[in-house]
Amino acid sequence: MSHIFKPALDSIPAGIISLDDYEKSAREFIRHDILEYINGGVADDRSLHANRKVFQNYRLYNRVFNSFTETDTTVTLFNKTHPHPIFLAPVAHQGLVHPEAELATAAAASAMQAPMIISSLSNTPVADVSSQASTAWFQLYWQTNRRATSALLNNAIKAGCEAIVITLDAPVSGVRNRAQRAGFSLPAGLTEINLRDLPLPPPRVLNADDSPVLHGLMQDAPTVKDLRWLRKQTDLPLLAKGISHPSEAQIVTDLGFDGLIISNHGGRTLDNMPSPPELIPAIRQVIGPDIPLLLDSGIRRGTDIITALALGADAVCIGRPQMWGLAVAGALGVAHSVKILKEEMEIAMALTGSPTLTALTPDIFFSENSSEYQTSQSFACGD
Amino acid sequence: MSHIFKPALDSIPAGIISLDDYEKSAREFIRHDILEYINGGVADDRSLHANRKVFQNYRLYNRVFNSFTETDTTVTLFNKTHPHPIFLAPVAHQGLVHPEAELATAAAASAMQAPMIISSLSNTPVADVSSQASTAWFQLYWQTNRRATSALLNNAIKAGCEAIVITLDAPVSGVRNRAQRAGFSLPAGLTEINLRDLPLPPPRVLNADDSPVLHGLMQDAPTVKDLRWLRKQTDLPLLAKGISHPSEAQIVTDLGFDGLIISNHGGRTLDNMPSPPELIPAIRQVIGPDIPLLLDSGIRRGTDIITALALGADAVCIGRPQMWGLAVAGALGVAHSVKILKEEMEIAMALTGSPTLTALTPDIFFSENSSEYQTSQSFACGD
Amino acid sequence: MSHIFKPALDSIPAGIISLDDYEKSAREFIRHDILEYINGGVADDRSLHANRKVFQNYRLYNRVFNSFTETDTTVTLFNKTHPHPIFLAPVAHQGLVHPEAELATAAAASAMQAPMIISSLSNTPVADVSSQASTAWFQLYWQTNRRATSALLNNAIKAGCEAIVITLDAPVSGVRNRAQRAGFSLPAGLTEINLRDLPLPPPRVLNADDSPVLHGLMQDAPTVKDLRWLRKQTDLPLLAKGISHPSEAQIVTDLGFDGLIISNHGGRTLDNMPSPPELIPAIRQVIGPDIPLLLDSGIRRGTDIITALALGADAVCIGRPQMWGLAVAGALGVAHSVKILKEEMEIAMALTGSPTLTALTPDIFFSENSSEYQTSQSFACGD
Amino acid sequence: MSHIFKPALDSIPAGIISLDDYEKSAREFIRHDILEYINGGVADDRSLHANRKVFQNYRLYNRVFNSFTETDTTVTLFNKTHPHPIFLAPVAHQGLVHPEAELATAAAASAMQAPMIISSLSNTPVADVSSQASTAWFQLYWQTNRRATSALLNNAIKAGCEAIVITLDAPVSGVRNRAQRAGFSLPAGLTEINLRDLPLPPPRVLNADDSPVLHGLMQDAPTVKDLRWLRKQTDLPLLAKGISHPSEAQIVTDLGFDGLIISNHGGRTLDNMPSPPELIPAIRQVIGPDIPLLLDSGIRRGTDIITALALGADAVCIGRPQMWGLAVAGALGVAHSVKILKEEMEIAMALTGSPTLTALTPDIFFSENSSEYQTSQSFACGD
Repeated sequence: MSHIFKPALDSIPAGIISLDDYEKSAREFIRHDILEYINGGVADDRSLHANRKVFQNYRLYNRVFNSFTETDTTVTLFNKTHPHPIFLAPVAHQGLVHPEAELATAAAASAMQAPMIISSLSNTPVADVSSQASTAWFQLYWQTNRRATSALLNNAIKAGCEAIVITLDAPVSGVRNRAQRAGFSLPAGLTEINLRDLPLPPPRVLNADDSPVLHGLMQDAPTVKDLRWLRKQTDLPLLAKGISHPSEAQIVTDLGFDGLIISNHGGRTLDNMPSPPELIPAIRQVIGPDIPLLLDSGIRRGTDIITALALGADAVCIGRPQMWGLAVAGALGVAHSVKILKEEMEIAMALTGSPTLTALTPDIFFSENSSEYQTSQSFACGD
Repeated sequence: MSHIFKPALDSIPAGIISLDDYEKSAREFIRHDILEYINGGVADDRSLHANRKVFQNYRLYNRVFNSFTETDTTVTLFNKTHPHPIFLAPVAHQGLVHPEAELATAAAASAMQAPMIISSLSNTPVADVSSQASTAWFQLYWQTNRRATSALLNNAIKAGCEAIVITLDAPVSGVRNRAQRAGFSLPAGLTEINLRDLPLPPPRVLNADDSPVLHGLMQDAPTVKDLRWLRKQTDLPLLAKGISHPSEAQIVTDLGFDGLIISNHGGRTLDNMPSPPELIPAIRQVIGPDIPLLLDSGIRRGTDIITALALGADAVCIGRPQMWGLAVAGALGVAHSVKILKEEMEIAMALTGSPTLTALTPDIFFSENSSEYQTSQSFACGD
Repeated sequence: MSHIFKPALDSIPAGIISLDDYEKSAREFIRHDILEYINGGVADDRSLHANRKVFQNYRLYNRVFNSFTETDTTVTLFNKTHPHPIFLAPVAHQGLVHPEAELATAAAASAMQAPMIISSLSNTPVADVSSQASTAWFQLYWQTNRRATSALLNNAIKAGCEAIVITLDAPVSGVRNRAQRAGFSLPAGLTEINLRDLPLPPPRVLNADDSPVLHGLMQDAPTVKDLRWLRKQTDLPLLAKGISHPSEAQIVTDLGFDGLIISNHGGRTLDNMPSPPELIPAIRQVIGPDIPLLLDSGIRRGTDIITALALGADAVCIGRPQMWGLAVAGALGVAHSVKILKEEMEIAMALTGSPTLTALTPDIFFSENSSEYQTSQSFACGD
Repeated sequence: MSHIFKPALDSIPAGIISLDDYEKSAREFIRHDILEYINGGVADDRSLHANRKVFQNYRLYNRVFNSFTETDTTVTLFNKTHPHPIFLAPVAHQGLVHPEAELATAAAASAMQAPMIISSLSNTPVADVSSQASTAWFQLYWQTNRRATSALLNNAIKAGCEAIVITLDAPVSGVRNRAQRAGFSLPAGLTEINLRDLPLPPPRVLNADDSPVLHGLMQDAPTVKDLRWLRKQTDLPLLAKGISHPSEAQIVTDLGFDGLIISNHGGRTLDNMPSPPELIPAIRQVIGPDIPLLLDSGIRRGTDIITALALGADAVCIGRPQMWGLAVAGALGVAHSVKILKEEMEIAMALTGSPTLTALTPDIFFSENSSEYQTSQSFACGD
């Protein structure tokens, strides 16, 4: 497989001091078509670009008078406490960029005590990966029917995964034009190893006029009944990834799910979508304050993390940065990326006067409306 | 005529996977002045660019819990059911880009079962074109007086066209600076063959100080009385193309017209116009839910189609993409373009949780206002 | 003087079909420092760029059902009727770009029957210019005191000027960084010929700490009393140019002035100013419907003209385009520029369904707010 | 030290006529890594860019009828009158760009009678600098504990500084990616001379898991109690720099501070911050009309100054322009920069009809809302 990437470095090159630097550097290590598959969004990349740009809308007040006698960056989810709120999102096919693939990522996750959500589509068996990570969750793709899904789920449970995340927003693949134009296909030798030997049904037979999407793939997507069934298959914490509408968030919690990951799949499914920060407040309002909510898609800076948490998230996930870090410097690169984010987050907490994660509320945001109001009026002072 | 275009290909080149790819590829096949005529808008191209950019304003929720047991992409207009809502807008002078001209387009329309609206200004006799298309409508330009118009109309009716679309927004040509700068004029050998032998009156004589626009062309534009007369000339469904203001949409339906095509002529008449998606809701509100409404101008993606339908359109038209497809690969290119759009539309339906076209309502749109409201307030949870 | 410009052409080059084309072409005919003086605004050119960009905010409905039986593009001001509403703004030092200077412009004005407002700072005596123009107005700069101002005014009256426009917005010159960086100064041989021999007072003596602006130039600016005096010096129509605030428009009409030219001096005085289209409605509201109002600054397209008139202006002025036309093709270039605008205006009138200038009202504008409202709601149809 | 900069010029080059010109020219005089340290902001430079862009939001009316019989550009703060409201912000390490460092700046400040706020981190002893400046204030950084801070403060008092400005917004350094990428570190030979010999405590010992930011630096930041103590250490006017939130402005005045400098540290601490002009009105409203308020960050034009004052500031500070001026032409360059700003300010006052600084109120601003309102309605004239 060595022909698909340039060997990663043994140390972090000087000048790599932010996640954007990793993104730039990674271009030299990853073959073009694979890079386009990883970095591309769908169609015109509008969702992709919006995911970064949206954070500009959340302007931050600095504050200087809050006490830092007690500080706390830990987050406790499902009775386990993590030292910081930075999680590793499920990222498929990490073998595309590094020979050690998910094992290297798990080593980094362990070093940084960042929970790792292992993808159904990992190139390394889930049990091997989870044994390396300090906290391993499993990302579950519905496998056409309950029997196959159950097999995949139980394999993850047996591997010691501590929570299950079912991804709901990708029953069909998005219009991945960048990957297609670059001629991307999965290199020979990389396998979806967790899916091998699943008891899948025979392929669906379609009529000539049937839509492969509507009459095909969509008929294999999980229904509400399937999710109700799934809920009963495990006592592990169960999270739904890829819900956007508040009413569907309500359905998920009514089904007895334990948490949500708000994500637009890194801009990889539907174009023209709202970005997760825009979605969080309304969803938090619907589900109440206690259900864990993670934000995925677009996190690249410490200020992004505190913004997400102030909007109502409990933790955040990073996706593509794992692949960039892996490509540039293997486990070291992934660990360094998490470390950069953690340090930036602490600086952002310090400067916004937020000694703890719970201090992060919408009060940290500057609202333009108030200032516009005031400039269009003479202001009355005093009394 | 071969000197005005490079021969089209016999197959679709790899890497052409979206309508934008066709647009780029077509530049190599079409002579510069003709390309500028086709692709240009008017004046500063503001209407043209707005037609694409406007779709960014309609942000789409993904949804995962709607049932896809029943799916349906058909649209029924005037008692005929079409398998999808993608129509071919009237496009003049298709001989500019391919030797088979409108005949190739009709073959593609037939293959994809896309209704084709044949232009008054086709380079192929309307009867020849309509005989190739599975559904042929005729686009009628008013011909100075009723007698000539009647002759043109009756020719189309005789040719078996199933509906008549009168274009109302181009009584004068727009300020086509790009075509003018490129020195475009219709190549010798291309004729407006349907207009030959029409009983046109002698050219209007103007005084020296008269405006060729206001005293000339505008005096030959059809009046409301003319349209009332036109309505009586045929029992075929009659649609008006190029109405923007709700009050004029009302006039059209009061006249007994059967449908509207909302269009800004691809940004080719008046600059600084609103774009069709912005116009549809108010017009739909005025005319009620039952009158067929098509949206033309700017459709390039499946997400554009579901946006148009959610705003109140029943179907959409594509214009320039026909010319790009023709230039690159003839009938094959046009058919492929429709196929791309149809597949993208089905994916967009799947991901927005819309199993049928009737499921497309404004509920698919994310409204920024609601999220802004929520971020500027602390949110109350629970109860 | 031939060294400061390249000789103008005897005919219009093909490809010059809009005012923007003249702007581009003029770069080849005008020496760099002079071009920067002409085209530059002040400071960061924000007012300059806003003057063009602002017109994008006024989106135009096309309309197709209005009657064009009666059409009219004439505008009557001060009992004289002009065939169209395009005036030539006062532009100083036309000798910078053409040897015939203002005489060529006057010939063009006469050919196109466009009123010409002769600048105080013309390089040709006002009497020579006014004798060539079909309608000549005079632009008056206050000359430090009443005696000198009176001399300049009477010279213009004697020359047959039919109205007087006093420019009020430039008591000090703006921060003309582009001209300064290019090292512009008035070439030897070009004189402000109308100002020669005026009875100016000796230069004001300033203390070392005095501000040349506040204690110098501003002390020589005309006061309200001076303007009251000025009003009594002539029975000719008297207009004020360069008023922005509605309350100052009220003062001008209270003083008995006959009209206003709303302008930000082509973005050449104060940066960060609102643009004239933004100012017109509030001023029109204050002064009532009958007082003539002209809009100057940023007019480059026929759609700009109908926008200005719909907002409340009676006519528009063009400034820099005169210099571009002169530089490229002398009188012919200026006349052609006016002709282009007039034709574009007629097309815009035709397509917006406006047979006369009085038909241009805010009804031609599309308002985004209404459509946004409608997309964020399900719409109720019928009843 | 000569290797870190190119010798400054003895005169101002032609073509340097604005602060932006100094910025461009300075690139040739300053070593790349130092330039990045000086010009860079934090993270993605969003706060940095916003500081300039924000001024575009404040559109200025010109006015022509206000009397300039009495004009006044002086500002009186703490019983001392300054001829203009342009102050020199504290800028650390001026030895990075010129061998005379802060002494050259002080000479310029004296020549222009601009108060100079000497940085704690100057490369020249505060007493040497203050003796050269016509008005010297001292910028105080908290030095871990009261004893060291007291020593630094008393040194400044002894040096004759007339006011004390404590900077509160930088308890930790921002994410200075541009400086880091360029490999910047303080060149050998440049010392923070005022901090030498301070009685600092031994470095804080951290546990392995402790955050250097939250458990380290933030524990050494001054508390409200520390500031209450500080207030008692001097009768000099005491100002707080780096407060953004109105509630914290209230705390500062409740503590008995005499003034505020509203600043986002030139975009060098927290990214995504609001800009000072957006913050001023709400803060002014809270603290009342009498407490001196200075605006720092982003001032580059005379129009910026009058905008700041109209929003509620009493004076403004410039930061980076000092370094550009120093690098290009030493004291002469700094003095020239202040002179440019003062002249631009006077021109902006003249053109907005503001004879005095007290005439600068929100009335100088054009509000887009009013014009939008009017264009979306037919306007009623008259009565």
